[in-house]
Amino acid sequence: MASLTVGNRRPVRLADIAKAAGVSHGTASNVFSRPEIVREEVRERVKAAAEAMGYGGPDPKGRLLRAGKVNAIGVATAEPLSYFFDDPFARVMMAGISQACDATGAGISLVSAANNEQLAWNIQSALVDGFIVFCIEGGSRLVQLARERKLPFVALDLASEDGSVATIGIDNVAGAAMAARHLTGLGHRRFAVLALQFVDGRTGPVSPEQVQTAVYAGTRDRLTGYFQELSRVGVDTSKVPVYETANDATSTIAALEAIFGVAEPPTAILAMSDRMALVALEWLSARKLKVPDDISIVGFDGVPEAAVSEPPLTTVAQPIAEIGRLAVKAILENDGTTNRRQLPVELIVRASSAPPRG
Amino acid sequence: MASLTVGNRRPVRLADIAKAAGVSHGTASNVFSRPEIVREEVRERVKAAAEAMGYGGPDPKGRLLRAGKVNAIGVATAEPLSYFFDDPFARVMMAGISQACDATGAGISLVSAANNEQLAWNIQSALVDGFIVFCIEGGSRLVQLARERKLPFVALDLASEDGSVATIGIDNVAGAAMAARHLTGLGHRRFAVLALQFVDGRTGPVSPEQVQTAVYAGTRDRLTGYFQELSRVGVDTSKVPVYETANDATSTIAALEAIFGVAEPPTAILAMSDRMALVALEWLSARKLKVPDDISIVGFDGVPEAAVSEPPLTTVAQPIAEIGRLAVKAILENDGTTNRRQLPVELIVRASSAPPRG
Repeated sequence: MASLTVGNRRPVRLADIAKAAGVSHGTASNVFSRPEIVREEVRERVKAAAEAMGYGGPDPKGRLLRAGKVNAIGVATAEPLSYFFDDPFARVMMAGISQACDATGAGISLVSAANNEQLAWNIQSALVDGFIVFCIEGGSRLVQLARERKLPFVALDLASEDGSVATIGIDNVAGAAMAARHLTGLGHRRFAVLALQFVDGRTGPVSPEQVQTAVYAGTRDRLTGYFQELSRVGVDTSKVPVYETANDATSTIAALEAIFGVAEPPTAILAMSDRMALVALEWLSARKLKVPDDISIVGFDGVPEAAVSEPPLTTVAQPIAEIGRLAVKAILENDGTTNRRQLPVELIVRASSAPPRG
Repeated sequence: MASLTVGNRRPVRLADIAKAAGVSHGTASNVFSRPEIVREEVRERVKAAAEAMGYGGPDPKGRLLRAGKVNAIGVATAEPLSYFFDDPFARVMMAGISQACDATGAGISLVSAANNEQLAWNIQSALVDGFIVFCIEGGSRLVQLARERKLPFVALDLASEDGSVATIGIDNVAGAAMAARHLTGLGHRRFAVLALQFVDGRTGPVSPEQVQTAVYAGTRDRLTGYFQELSRVGVDTSKVPVYETANDATSTIAALEAIFGVAEPPTAILAMSDRMALVALEWLSARKLKVPDDISIVGFDGVPEAAVSEPPLTTVAQPIAEIGRLAVKAILENDGTTNRRQLPVELIVRASSAPPRG
């Protein structure tokens, strides 16, 4: 608080200054918030009174409420806040978001919470000019909460069908099809899919009936892209094992154990994130399975870690940092319209993919 | 804003609800902020009026001002915000800070700015319960700004001499001495030092007269630790080249070019950060200088990247994430006292250090 406490007496308030200077409360307030509209003589008198009484200026919270702008972007996730610093994808996205904020001097508020009630309160009470919502697990709830704030917001990674949500993302179907086409072109016909979340809190095998039921459009669209291409070359997609994970090591390893615990395992893995693909590289290496000689893997995202893994990972690269920069721009320059932007993806071929063994 | 606009009419305000329910504005306000102090019959009447008029509850900003708590930690730096996501040390620190915030449901506001005026405004206007200040370049100014907010704050990396600033850090003298002792024990006698910032905005060689003049106590204390140990084994520290960097690749490479552009270069480098040491590893490798055969290097910090570099880096490890967690705790549990905590460091010996050639 900017108001000073002298000894144990109550803090000096703007009203005290106004009284001492013989001006109205409104005039005293204007001296601090809009000095240009106050006559110089009055301005000097109020400032002299403020100095004499040890008043440091109005509470910044009050000033903000008047200005109506906080100069901050809220970034919300239903994951723990540590996700922003641990997850390779989130880190690159945050780098892009922070670069765009740096360019305009805006701050960033990271918003999350372990339980629903706290999360709702944190979203409701965040003092920001708008939200960027990371739509991974729990994303649909976050979008709802952000919408209730009636501030501009942009959802990442969510291709909402109703068109009422501003989104910045990629063409997931096309990106996934590129990954699958690369592997079918190399001659692969036996696949497994490491899939992102379909439904909050669930992991494990996804039945052929469930494959079109993902709550998260990113998951559904990537699977559609994979299967479009596999069907094109005659693969029976109802026989392709699909494992839903929480995009972490534990659930990815459980999926790998199931995928490779069969008589005729796949020769190629389609992973919906680089994070899962990188876990798979380590898991396979520990089991003396060689990538790409025994198994090919193609990831998704294009995080920096994928370029330096052993072997370097073939992946579908999104312009992650650019998505973050555009999201900030969309909020700060919000004109009330709902924009839905799709940025291009590209396939980066590295050493984790090769023809299957003769 | 939680208040609804019906058509193009003005939003329904709390005053309208109070009038419709026949209660005072204060009572209507209490129904939303402190319902437990309002009689049930009155509470129901106000809520019914609110529902009938489409009033969604008070503006969350207003609610916060009353509660006096924001449930958020401010993390401030004079570096760009992208520092929090790019820098290996900052990332681990932020992981610790975010874990502690996750445990209590608190949010994080990242505060920075490209210019002084904007930075001051962002610090003044951040709606947080306290600040954690990263005291790297520009840190002294940040501490001053944080102090003016009269909120609890903790300075990282700054051993302030006046005792009025709460700090959490390490014994930099002891840590640096451990690094130097490791190298002198291996037989090294020719050293160079890659030093952190002495004075904001300056890089290049530091004269023997300047070595005790660092504004940043972390820099000064690490140099003291290095030199204590080097003096102990008879090295003339006035002849040890010390280069001040901005802890980035550009200024570190400039320092390396100067250090190795002499007839008799050092056999060992003491780097005040792993970041500089990792830049040095790459630079030396590109020049076909072998680490540790030709040159030994010891870093400082213990970032994860130091464990997987080529070769893995010997370093003085700080409990970085623990420092972050304790800083959050110090702010959230602030009792008005000024704590100064020092956590232990340890030397992690890896493959970047060995006896000097012949």
